[in-house]
Amino acid sequence: MLSKNKIKFIQSLEQKKVRREMNCFVAEGNKMVNDTIRSFECKLLVATSVWLEDHPGVEAGEIIEVAQDEVKKASLQKSPQDVIAVYRIPHYSVDFDSLPKQLSLALDTVQDPGNLGTIIRLADWYGIENIFCSLECADLYNPKTVQSTMGALARVKVHYVNLKEFFEKVKVPVYGTFLDGRNMYSSELSAQGIIVMGNEGNGISKELEPYISQRLFIPNYPEGRKTTESLNVAVATAIICSEFRRRTVSL
Amino acid sequence: MLSKNKIKFIQSLEQKKVRREMNCFVAEGNKMVNDTIRSFECKLLVATSVWLEDHPGVEAGEIIEVAQDEVKKASLQKSPQDVIAVYRIPHYSVDFDSLPKQLSLALDTVQDPGNLGTIIRLADWYGIENIFCSLECADLYNPKTVQSTMGALARVKVHYVNLKEFFEKVKVPVYGTFLDGRNMYSSELSAQGIIVMGNEGNGISKELEPYISQRLFIPNYPEGRKTTESLNVAVATAIICSEFRRRTVSL
Repeated sequence: MLSKNKIKFIQSLEQKKVRREMNCFVAEGNKMVNDTIRSFECKLLVATSVWLEDHPGVEAGEIIEVAQDEVKKASLQKSPQDVIAVYRIPHYSVDFDSLPKQLSLALDTVQDPGNLGTIIRLADWYGIENIFCSLECADLYNPKTVQSTMGALARVKVHYVNLKEFFEKVKVPVYGTFLDGRNMYSSELSAQGIIVMGNEGNGISKELEPYISQRLFIPNYPEGRKTTESLNVAVATAIICSEFRRRTVSL
Repeated sequence: MLSKNKIKFIQSLEQKKVRREMNCFVAEGNKMVNDTIRSFECKLLVATSVWLEDHPGVEAGEIIEVAQDEVKKASLQKSPQDVIAVYRIPHYSVDFDSLPKQLSLALDTVQDPGNLGTIIRLADWYGIENIFCSLECADLYNPKTVQSTMGALARVKVHYVNLKEFFEKVKVPVYGTFLDGRNMYSSELSAQGIIVMGNEGNGISKELEPYISQRLFIPNYPEGRKTTESLNVAVATAIICSEFRRRTVSL
């Protein structure tokens, strides 16, 4: 039985302010919770008896067994399933020593929650372990973003940092895409470094440009043809990550 | 001055059924209408005096000059701008003779309107002139999709067809992505052909598999690592189109 207070608490986590105060976020659905419950500290688990029977030994601060209707009452999703988990927001420390050995992403004011979720999912695909988000980026713990990562948020560490201060500290190649950049396909790309992706409307901010050591361009086709002025940021991130990884995979 | 009936008419075009009955769709905003008005037959144009002064000689079945508040009343968007255009839905005929000389896309039940819009935008980037959508795909003329193409729908022809019948008629290489496909980077890719992308949850349908002459796989990294099970369909389309075009651009 789910109390009114608990329903209120879960639903209040739709608001960023409450998430930050409570240091909690919500993940929902059978696949999502299966994929993430071993990666986060679960404060509250609301699940049907069927789900709980299928997951013996599941650990949470509090476990409430409910009927499926009750899941629906608390859910933030359009199609509620059998389980809702409230997790503690993790705080990862940045391992500056390992950064020069990895490929990472930095997101400068990526504001659409769906784009952020898609980028986390593709980072997971490409074995990118760390994403550094500017403080102006969409909040990963927004329920829409959580769900759109399809569980990838359990495997990719997302750090919110002041990117300018961050770039002052890292000593690795930093790549960015610009309309006047160099053809990505014919540029030398290292297997390690940081790829910066800019805001949906404005690209990479002036403030961060000085930190970018290589300006890249994703060629359109045929080259020089008048076309859409830009690609969606998640799409551009995918294309560039694919090209970095293509150079290193065995053919 | 915008009559109640006109407002009602514009807003009714949010519904697919009405769009098909009236054979009309809505495009909004300064940039969107600038980019598309020469490509479609404009039945009705609702614009502020400022917009109309900036666009002398603009052609439409009916032009209504309104105050900005009135644009807001009729708008289907969250942030209305200075102009709303109602266009006739174009009906393109398929040029089967030119298909063997081009790279095209076929979408098998891509259901998310945002994904469809993003795919049209990236098709434009990569000079893909034709997209063949199964009848189960999201409707391009959904206002959300129209806006998310960022004007690319003026340059890319989207055809709704029965894909099985379509593939019976075309004689070109047909590529599809599968989890058990061949590493895309090491596969031979022709500069022409059709790339089939499948549904968000279920991939390419069994019914279409026999028409696919080359089964490709987008390698993850490191290869064989347990990861997200799939990529977002727009992201996967982008990665595969980039690889096809990379093979043909001058380096």
